[in-house]
Amino acid sequence: MSEPFSFKVARNDGAARVGEIRNPRGVIRTPAFMPIGTAGTVKAMYPDQVKALGSDVVLGNTYHLMLRPGAERIAALGGLHKFMNWPYPILTDSGGFQVMSLARLRKLDERGVVFQSHIDGASVELTPERAMEIQRLLGSDIQMQFDECVKLPASYEETERAMRLSLRWAERSLKAFGSQPGRAAFGIVQGGVVPELRIESAKVLVGMDFDGLAVGGLAVGEPQEQMLATLDVVVPLLPETKPRYLMGVGTPQDIVESVRRGIDMFDCVMPTRAGRHGVAYTRFGKLNLRNAKHADDPQPLDATSPCPAARDYSRAYLHHLVKSGEILGMMLLTWANLAYYQDLMAGIRKAIGEGRLAEFAMEVGSVKSSDEPDGGP
Amino acid sequence: MSEPFSFKVARNDGAARVGEIRNPRGVIRTPAFMPIGTAGTVKAMYPDQVKALGSDVVLGNTYHLMLRPGAERIAALGGLHKFMNWPYPILTDSGGFQVMSLARLRKLDERGVVFQSHIDGASVELTPERAMEIQRLLGSDIQMQFDECVKLPASYEETERAMRLSLRWAERSLKAFGSQPGRAAFGIVQGGVVPELRIESAKVLVGMDFDGLAVGGLAVGEPQEQMLATLDVVVPLLPETKPRYLMGVGTPQDIVESVRRGIDMFDCVMPTRAGRHGVAYTRFGKLNLRNAKHADDPQPLDATSPCPAARDYSRAYLHHLVKSGEILGMMLLTWANLAYYQDLMAGIRKAIGEGRLAEFAMEVGSVKSSDEPDGGP
Repeated sequence: MSEPFSFKVARNDGAARVGEIRNPRGVIRTPAFMPIGTAGTVKAMYPDQVKALGSDVVLGNTYHLMLRPGAERIAALGGLHKFMNWPYPILTDSGGFQVMSLARLRKLDERGVVFQSHIDGASVELTPERAMEIQRLLGSDIQMQFDECVKLPASYEETERAMRLSLRWAERSLKAFGSQPGRAAFGIVQGGVVPELRIESAKVLVGMDFDGLAVGGLAVGEPQEQMLATLDVVVPLLPETKPRYLMGVGTPQDIVESVRRGIDMFDCVMPTRAGRHGVAYTRFGKLNLRNAKHADDPQPLDATSPCPAARDYSRAYLHHLVKSGEILGMMLLTWANLAYYQDLMAGIRKAIGEGRLAEFAMEVGSVKSSDEPDGGP
Repeated sequence: MSEPFSFKVARNDGAARVGEIRNPRGVIRTPAFMPIGTAGTVKAMYPDQVKALGSDVVLGNTYHLMLRPGAERIAALGGLHKFMNWPYPILTDSGGFQVMSLARLRKLDERGVVFQSHIDGASVELTPERAMEIQRLLGSDIQMQFDECVKLPASYEETERAMRLSLRWAERSLKAFGSQPGRAAFGIVQGGVVPELRIESAKVLVGMDFDGLAVGGLAVGEPQEQMLATLDVVVPLLPETKPRYLMGVGTPQDIVESVRRGIDMFDCVMPTRAGRHGVAYTRFGKLNLRNAKHADDPQPLDATSPCPAARDYSRAYLHHLVKSGEILGMMLLTWANLAYYQDLMAGIRKAIGEGRLAEFAMEVGSVKSSDEPDGGP
């Protein structure tokens, strides 16, 4: 466990870069897509499948794990890696986003937040210090600062207040993180879609001693153009030497366009959530397997895919499984979707290495986003 | 597809026998346990996992498949083997049992039954001829006669009437089955727990040209002693040269005791259904992973199991998954349970081969059936 946390860019293609994050748990090839392992499991997948698809890192949710089964319990059992049988890198969020989206907020002040658990209604406090303590107890390799993520649309004043609070919480988070050899702490740029607030947030965070920087508070419903415009403002302010993580993004097109702007890391529920709702991502676009038109279709999702889920089962069978509520339908579609996403990331890395990302982005962009009106998850 | 259906006993140990069923789809090592693939999927399992555990054959349900996605549709898609990506042997039931247990029965007469689908309320007719036609359309390797399975307790008169009707339906089923090279038709002994009715049923069926004989109408709630007593009456009447299938059985203890009485094939929902309800079968007995006592237990289900699900995940983690309603919990417990059942069958076959089945049965019987009062599925 003596290898330090490090990041190295191997090659640039415009603002895009291909590189590697190294830590004692392994190597994360960037640009990287991190499957969501909310409650200590990438839903409907065995961990070795997740790894075999080319996932070098998964994301765990502090909010969910602190409520159930509890951070101290996981620590006593040897940490999250051992608990979920995933010996590779793990990034954990700080819980801030879920407190706002899932819990009933009881109090938010300088100190932190008090909320009601969505599981049993218990009153729970989360502060920068506690958020970092939980991530340390989990044994997380990449720990995110505690922040306040306002819902969009928000007023200028509200966005500014939350951004400045998040900066003060960044200081406290970094101090609470302390020194953990081989592990990293990331700051989070906030400021909604207000360029001057994003700039202020980025500049202050860059001056702190974080190991990487994230862009938070995007992909919360705003148009893609706004998200990309924000990246155009923020990313040039971030140091070349540290990894950049765009939180909660996104569609294949979102990812490619963000990579072109210099983003290295992504996480998103789309492939896994869509897979549980009968929707497949493929090279040919999105398919809603619930649609009756698939009922007699002997074709697989993608006959040339290396993923058995995409290659070895007919759309008719997948339609049947989805209509029947069979668990195997969720297993196969999640598997196929994560395979598609990781193949996309491999394609992106290869394209950057060959200096042809713009061309690759056009191919991805030309795929219609859905084959059906109700193709969304 | 030129290999005929055949059955060969390799060795006896008392009434028990170890042998092989061969057909164009493969070899079924007997005594065999057939996982339930009701709607074209062994729930929460990839087909290659099912095979890797040592399952040589799975069971498909005519009732479910005829209603959704439909037998003609599956035939047009190339048959059930291709549809569910399972190229190995498949046994299908005739639908009779599910008509009685799942559907609202509208009419039962000499011709057959009319029932209301539990999916959409549609009125559907099932006759011996149609049940066999469906199984032929599915491409089933072992097709069961259409029968009437009365619920226990039932009067003598009712049991006798249903048994005699089932014998007439056996004739019609066999005629409808016709000649299908490589495929087999099995008759079903009925007669409740009335020895003289069981004897009558068995004698008539033995006189017909079935490729194998099943014992139906047991394991429907009666005490184990009654089930075994019925086998003691029926099995000696069945020819040594044909496989014997005890339908819907059972617990590990039921299986071992039935093998000792000369049964070769079993099917049961227990391992798969229990796995979806948080219950694990292990060499040490049944565990209910919902119980709080597992919350901090770092032990796996069985550290010496070759099955990753039983070996590589702590009981604490399984408890967490089950409590959280995570799909992976169902996947891991189903996997571990089927592994246990197939290991049990391998142990039975080995014990017969070595002439020590009685000893093996004592070992299995000595395991307490549950570690907890609420250990049942």
